[in-house]
Amino acid sequence: MAGDATIRMHAPVVRDDGVADRVAVEEPLEIRVRGRALAITMRTPGHDEELAVGFLHGEGLLAGPIIAAGPTPDLSNNAVEIDVPLRPEARERRFYTTSSCGVCGKGALEEVAVHAERLGPGPSIDRALLAALPDRLRQPGFAVTGGLHATGLFDPAGTLLCVREDVGRHNAMDKVIGRALLDDELPFADRILCVSGRLSFELVQKAAVAGCPILVGVGAPTSLAVELASDRAMTLAGFARGGRVNVYAGAERVR
Amino acid sequence: MAGDATIRMHAPVVRDDGVADRVAVEEPLEIRVRGRALAITMRTPGHDEELAVGFLHGEGLLAGPIIAAGPTPDLSNNAVEIDVPLRPEARERRFYTTSSCGVCGKGALEEVAVHAERLGPGPSIDRALLAALPDRLRQPGFAVTGGLHATGLFDPAGTLLCVREDVGRHNAMDKVIGRALLDDELPFADRILCVSGRLSFELVQKAAVAGCPILVGVGAPTSLAVELASDRAMTLAGFARGGRVNVYAGAERVR
Repeated sequence: MAGDATIRMHAPVVRDDGVADRVAVEEPLEIRVRGRALAITMRTPGHDEELAVGFLHGEGLLAGPIIAAGPTPDLSNNAVEIDVPLRPEARERRFYTTSSCGVCGKGALEEVAVHAERLGPGPSIDRALLAALPDRLRQPGFAVTGGLHATGLFDPAGTLLCVREDVGRHNAMDKVIGRALLDDELPFADRILCVSGRLSFELVQKAAVAGCPILVGVGAPTSLAVELASDRAMTLAGFARGGRVNVYAGAERVR
Repeated sequence: MAGDATIRMHAPVVRDDGVADRVAVEEPLEIRVRGRALAITMRTPGHDEELAVGFLHGEGLLAGPIIAAGPTPDLSNNAVEIDVPLRPEARERRFYTTSSCGVCGKGALEEVAVHAERLGPGPSIDRALLAALPDRLRQPGFAVTGGLHATGLFDPAGTLLCVREDVGRHNAMDKVIGRALLDDELPFADRILCVSGRLSFELVQKAAVAGCPILVGVGAPTSLAVELASDRAMTLAGFARGGRVNVYAGAERVR
């Protein structure tokens, strides 16, 4: 698997005032499964195999365990090859670019959401600790560039277990979940996910598919994020800053 | 076309502390062209026909003028129907979910970027005015929810001509560009686009395809955003806040 040598979080630029600055790296990544190109995503290079397997997992496309994951053997750093059996739906390349979505006239959740079981009771957490989790994210790339999102994985005591940064907020979460999948640590029955930004439907869905009972973010949730969290019995909390946090769903896990 | 009656920017939620709050609405939209479903995107309802034509334009898929654009005649608010000729590539549903991307081993820009001419000289703008444009964005939805991105269109004197909010930063820009397309006001030869957040490759590409010579944002640019802006002779400026702004490309337009 790709080591830390392939992580390129920031790159130099020279501003018009002559100041040498650094910006977050954004480059396309092609995700290949058993030789077939399945998707392209813009991402910050590094942990690409985590991103790829996390993405496939979050889309509900995996039909068995990961056999191998790593950079392609050709010259490019911008492709990753995964050896894993996929569900038949993967052939139709659904994602958000489907040829016939069936959303119209039906409930959005039932048509758009990937299947995920309702979550078990899971841990409970002190409200003050939940509010403080974003302060415990390590974000060295953001510190340099101001342009990277982060997702962190915590245990119920508030210990940071894994953190990933990326220009895409969904990528950062895919990387954390992908790392856990490669380490055979899913589902996240006793874990908390924390994101540096806003809480969209997509992030709640990824957390739900990973079996995570608590998701907290620095930013605002959307209506569909709250709806999906409620439907899946997930605790969803936002605006975690300055010692405060708002809980929008699953308050029974917050003490 | 859909009127303001269909705009639903925020929805009520009750937090666990009993406070009645409002969150940004996020719902899926199916974009249909001449009866065929082309894409689904998560978006904030309202100005859907602008979003759809702006999206199609930004992807370089339009082969002629818009003949009609509006909500589908069925019961759903979550689909929009556009009558417009498309280029043959649209049939292959490229976007970022292509079956064979060709990115690997080649330059990212030439393979991923939609074709756009290099921009003409365009207007110049005072540095202090450029830094102040984000303060001139009207963001009523953000004021209520803290969860919406905005894109504004300005003339060189700093007058706000159009502003749109959405849970997706790319959607907000698609809506502004789509509005202009419907009003036959493209390309933006003498205009400035301003976004409330970060500056990704995708946003620079949309602005470039719309012919806009100056793009400024409140947040950080990515490496590929700077690279694409330089390649297209676009002025790209970030971190516009507190009376300051960093210029990363096209400084000749900043006085």
